[in-house]
This record gives sequence, structure tokens and C-alpha cells, in this order.
Amino acid sequence: MKLEFRRRGILFVVSAPSGAGKSTLLNALRPGADFVYSVSCTTRVPRPGEIDGEDYHFLSAEDFARKLAAAEFLESAEVHGNHYGTLRAVVSEQLAAGVDVLIDIDVQGARQIRGDARTDIRASIADIFIMPPSLDELRHRLVKRGTETPEQIEVRLTNAATEMEAWRDYRYTLVSGSVEEDLQKFRAIMRAERYLSRRMILA
Amino acid sequence: MKLEFRRRGILFVVSAPSGAGKSTLLNALRPGADFVYSVSCTTRVPRPGEIDGEDYHFLSAEDFARKLAAAEFLESAEVHGNHYGTLRAVVSEQLAAGVDVLIDIDVQGARQIRGDARTDIRASIADIFIMPPSLDELRHRLVKRGTETPEQIEVRLTNAATEMEAWRDYRYTLVSGSVEEDLQKFRAIMRAERYLSRRMILA
Repeated sequence: MKLEFRRRGILFVVSAPSGAGKSTLLNALRPGADFVYSVSCTTRVPRPGEIDGEDYHFLSAEDFARKLAAAEFLESAEVHGNHYGTLRAVVSEQLAAGVDVLIDIDVQGARQIRGDARTDIRASIADIFIMPPSLDELRHRLVKRGTETPEQIEVRLTNAATEMEAWRDYRYTLVSGSVEEDLQKFRAIMRAERYLSRRMILA
Repeated sequence: MKLEFRRRGILFVVSAPSGAGKSTLLNALRPGADFVYSVSCTTRVPRPGEIDGEDYHFLSAEDFARKLAAAEFLESAEVHGNHYGTLRAVVSEQLAAGVDVLIDIDVQGARQIRGDARTDIRASIADIFIMPPSLDELRHRLVKRGTETPEQIEVRLTNAATEMEAWRDYRYTLVSGSVEEDLQKFRAIMRAERYLSRRMILA
């Protein structure tokens, strides 16, 4: 008798108010054999250097609208007149193949993903909220980044305070510290999720 | 605004068929600031070198029986005429103080702990089953250990095969590899459990 466990893929859903350290963390994570990043569809015009199918799947407005009407998106949103969305079938196939998928998404998008009717998607979700250590620290990080005006920073802080209330909706809350700490915590969550009995299939 | 998260203690319940690598793993874990081992009560006579309150709480048969009748044990068992049990009040106080407690227990004991009516106990449980990679490997480890006769090894293997069926009842299943691998997996689980939003209390 030899026990062989296979397992379903995990859908890591990661959200954070801007400045909480999410981008730094996700850049440091480096996907590889371990997991893949979900690639969004968008109607936005490609920026110089962006690669179709890698940074985004660039779709025409008509194509996007057709897919939206056919309810093919796991989540979708309109930002500054551009549409963004994640194709359910792509994610579903990756999960069925045992591949872990990471989606970097705002709290509204996370809510759409959680609300999806497909049970294979819902059972695969491990959602993680990255919390800034404090609003003061968040302000400090935004000022240091230097990409926003003081007025824009105030708007971001107000939005962040609202977004931060969503932490309870996520299975995990990771209070951001140093990049190294955040990375270790995040990797621990990724590993532990892989040992959940309910994800395992006895071959 | 400063976010301060406190959290409830976690009750790590760890089971494994003998030879699965549990003792080696738990010895390597070394509790400290991180968590404490639960100390069982027993009516067994102390062995040379065993310290009361550290290895076990040594109780008289009368004292044990009184506590058992008063339902003070979270779990209890009789083995070779000796009684063993874990005091619910002790564990409960540790958890309330935010201390993580690790109980090394067989599948029957784990079942009793899960079935406990106290919701603070139930909400605190993170149960982990350590699975031998295969029965062949388990046999190999038992032979190598050299503490049992071939007949005793066969009995242990039969028991192990039955015990292994309990893996689905545990939140996590850790398929045992090298000590170092097991340690890393176990530590990842311990860390990740600490970031569960439902364990957190916003101060």
C-alpha cells in the first residue's frame, strides 16, 4: 500500500489598500513552478513594452462586451472607462490541473470571486488581506513613494480606511511589516494551504 | 488610527500512526516563546527522571476518578490499566491568554477534543495528521528503530493502516518526508494558522 496524494489547485486571492506593501510583496514572490499569476483581460490600449497574454489579454471593446454578456468573467470592473476582467474558464482549468493561481485584486473584485456560483472555484479560494500596520505608516509610505500630490494622498488614505474594513471577509489577514517578514508570512500561508486535507485527493 | 491585532490561542492537535515521524518532529520543534506543550495528567507511577508538572501531572487514582466524574477532562483514556487525561480548564486558560498549545494525541483522543462542547475550545483547534509516506516505509522505519519484535511490528502496521484512515478528519495532512521537510511544513502550518482573520481581535 502506497499513499499518493494529489491535490486541487488553490486560488490565492490577494487584496490590500494601496501602500500596504502588496506590490512589493508580489514582486518579491516570483512565481515559477510554485504558482502562476492570473492574467486579466482588458480593453485598455497596451502600454509600451506590455506583452499580450503575459501582462494582459488585450481585447477589443466588442469582444469584452460579448464575453461579459455571456457571463464568462469570474470578476470584472470598469476603471477610467476601461474594462478589466478574469476569464472563469482559464482559472477553472488551471485549478483542475492542480496549478495554484494568484489573483491580485481589489476588495470589490474579491467579493465577486467569492460570490461565484461554481463550487470548484469557491472551494479553491484562499483569500488574503494585506493590512498596513497603521494609517500613519500608510501615509508615510505614500509620501515616501512620491508619486501622488498631498491631495491625492489624502484621497488614498480615506479610501484605504474604508477598504481596510474588509479584512474580516478574508480568510487570512497579514499585517504588513518589512518585505522579508511579509514574504515569510505569505509563503507560510501558501504552504499551509497546500496541506489542507480537504484539498487532497487520495490517488 | 493604529491597528492592533490580538489573537486567541491555537490548540494544535497532532496525531500520527507510530513510526510516521511524529516524535522526531515534535522533538525537533522545541517549544519556547512560540507555543507550549500540553501536559497530561496520569495515574501511572513516575519513571526515574520524570518531573511532576513537566512530563506529567501525576495524580492518585482517586483524584483522577474524581476529576473524570466531574467531567474536567478535555480527553482521557485508559492504557494498560493507567489513566491519562488533559484538564480542560488548563487548556482553556492558556488559549484565553493567547498562548498556543500543542497536544500530541492519538486519533481517539483527537476525536474527544473535537467533540468537546465548549465553543472556545472548538474554535481554537487546528488539527494535523502526520501520514507515513507508505506502509512499506513505515515498516522500514519500525524495523530500523529495532524496539519491536517482528510480530509486534506486524501488529503496529495493522493498527497504523486503520489509524491512517482518520486523515480526512484533520484539517491538515502532512505526508512525512525527511525531518527537515516535516519541520518546515509543520512550521508553515503553525504560522499560517496565526494569520487566520477569525482568530484575530481588533484591539
